[in-house]
Amino acid sequence: MELPKRMADMAKDVDGRLMHYLDYGKYPKLRKAMIHYPEAGGKRMRPVLAMLVAEAVGKRGKETMPFGCALEIIHNFTLVHDDVMDKDEMRRGRPAVHVLYDEPTAIIAGDALFARAYEILCDTDVPGEDLRRLVRTVSQTVYLIAEGQQMDIDFEARHTVGVEEYVLMVEEKTAVLFACAAEGGAIIAGGTDQQVRDMKECARLWGIGFQIWDDVLGILGDERKTGKPVGNDIRNGKRTLIIVHAMEQLKRPCSDRDTLLKALGNEHASAEEVSEAIAVLERTGSIDFVTKQAQDYARKAKELLQCLPPSEEKNMISTLIDYAVGRDR
Amino acid sequence: MELPKRMADMAKDVDGRLMHYLDYGKYPKLRKAMIHYPEAGGKRMRPVLAMLVAEAVGKRGKETMPFGCALEIIHNFTLVHDDVMDKDEMRRGRPAVHVLYDEPTAIIAGDALFARAYEILCDTDVPGEDLRRLVRTVSQTVYLIAEGQQMDIDFEARHTVGVEEYVLMVEEKTAVLFACAAEGGAIIAGGTDQQVRDMKECARLWGIGFQIWDDVLGILGDERKTGKPVGNDIRNGKRTLIIVHAMEQLKRPCSDRDTLLKALGNEHASAEEVSEAIAVLERTGSIDFVTKQAQDYARKAKELLQCLPPSEEKNMISTLIDYAVGRDR
Repeated sequence: MELPKRMADMAKDVDGRLMHYLDYGKYPKLRKAMIHYPEAGGKRMRPVLAMLVAEAVGKRGKETMPFGCALEIIHNFTLVHDDVMDKDEMRRGRPAVHVLYDEPTAIIAGDALFARAYEILCDTDVPGEDLRRLVRTVSQTVYLIAEGQQMDIDFEARHTVGVEEYVLMVEEKTAVLFACAAEGGAIIAGGTDQQVRDMKECARLWGIGFQIWDDVLGILGDERKTGKPVGNDIRNGKRTLIIVHAMEQLKRPCSDRDTLLKALGNEHASAEEVSEAIAVLERTGSIDFVTKQAQDYARKAKELLQCLPPSEEKNMISTLIDYAVGRDR
Repeated sequence: MELPKRMADMAKDVDGRLMHYLDYGKYPKLRKAMIHYPEAGGKRMRPVLAMLVAEAVGKRGKETMPFGCALEIIHNFTLVHDDVMDKDEMRRGRPAVHVLYDEPTAIIAGDALFARAYEILCDTDVPGEDLRRLVRTVSQTVYLIAEGQQMDIDFEARHTVGVEEYVLMVEEKTAVLFACAAEGGAIIAGGTDQQVRDMKECARLWGIGFQIWDDVLGILGDERKTGKPVGNDIRNGKRTLIIVHAMEQLKRPCSDRDTLLKALGNEHASAEEVSEAIAVLERTGSIDFVTKQAQDYARKAKELLQCLPPSEEKNMISTLIDYAVGRDR
């Protein structure tokens, strides 16, 4: 499943503007550390979403550019700090900021990106009171992302995590920024209160679906398309919703549990051991459960599109939602 | 030299409001990590300065409370991250956030404080376009603080640092936040463009003077008053303006240079060795140089107070400036 070409064009416009915005400051080392992730690319889903929503609500797509770039920068700031915290050494095929420089520089670069994002946000061509709404929602959103990141870190140290708290973590770590993008797009386009509310909720649901579909891809993903080997998340021992669900089903000792635990987090697990673990995940119904969850979130998200008048952009948002839970296995 | 009681009362009001603002979020661990430094106290100089300026400009001191608290929270966020970067284990007599919890939690708590600060800023009772000015100046300020922190870190790895670049670092790391406090106070009070500009510049100069006076205290400070032993900064090997100046005077090998280097950064230096090092700093004129610099900054800062009509608060700002460079040795 491919995204429409117009979305790729939008993403390209965002690229240019983003680099322009980040050509800033008088200290070359800090500037380079700041642009290291943004210049490595990305789908620019958040700015594109804001643009599509603003176009669909009131033909004000272009006016979302500063807001969208601010969100993209915030997304990148969280990646820089996440990589320091998780000790991840690579990102988008390049060394992480803290590896290329050092941890202090990565922490500072993240902070500086965050600050720069708010300055760019102020360039948004909206009445001052709407800017207040944008600053408020962006700030509440970043706070939730911080909570989600804290949960994620704390979950790592725990034996068991429930499905509900796992979904809450995913919502706060990922979905809220999509929600903010859609909400902001609707505000900038002068949407009604209902449009602002519904588009926010639509993107929140979509964001959760998007993220948990990632879990399915991480287990069943096609190596040629995702760039990751089948069962990648199993060998890495990544705690995904599929694993969280399966472990709830396998609380008591049993041979399926043993089979799963043998491959989980075992870098040297053979292809056969991984296949057997996947078979366990099929038997516990965990893959079906997560697939259905992702589809349910997407369906509910699409229902909320009713608040928009018919337009090409409305259709594109619908496509984007399908894409979220239909990206190739 | 003591600060007026009214300023202590103002700081107390700030304390209460600050704790109210930080009683937020649903994740207790993150909340506790966030309030760890703010609840440990502090002089609340930035909110108090904003309040005094707004009172002096247009009797709108109370209206600065959200803005002032936002700056205090930003100040605390930078301390949390600085302590992670510098591996400092204590702050205000308590374990640093990253010691009490861990580094990831400290990084997240800093980010969350930053986000929360902007949300609080939105509560400021000003027209939307003035809020835009406040968000813009706060963001530019935090960007400069990041640059200053990066310089500070990079200086540590270098053999020599010049007086000018050292002062620039101090300006960005410390003075800009005072400048922002005064500028914001003037904006909130509806000040003229000249008042906004002059109060910002006044506080910038004052902030530089304040910080380099700290260097004098760190070398000659009275233990009973500063809580730090005489020569504390010498034993710690802290690169202060006094040391930067002295090293510029002692570029070539000589016995004074040897005497200074023997005590500098030597935790076990005897009281006599420290005294001899201080005598060297007197001979190079470095203590006089820095004292005079601090006084010059304070003098220029006071000249800018002309833009204010006479008031009790104007006098208090003047007292605050004197305090900056007259705190007991």
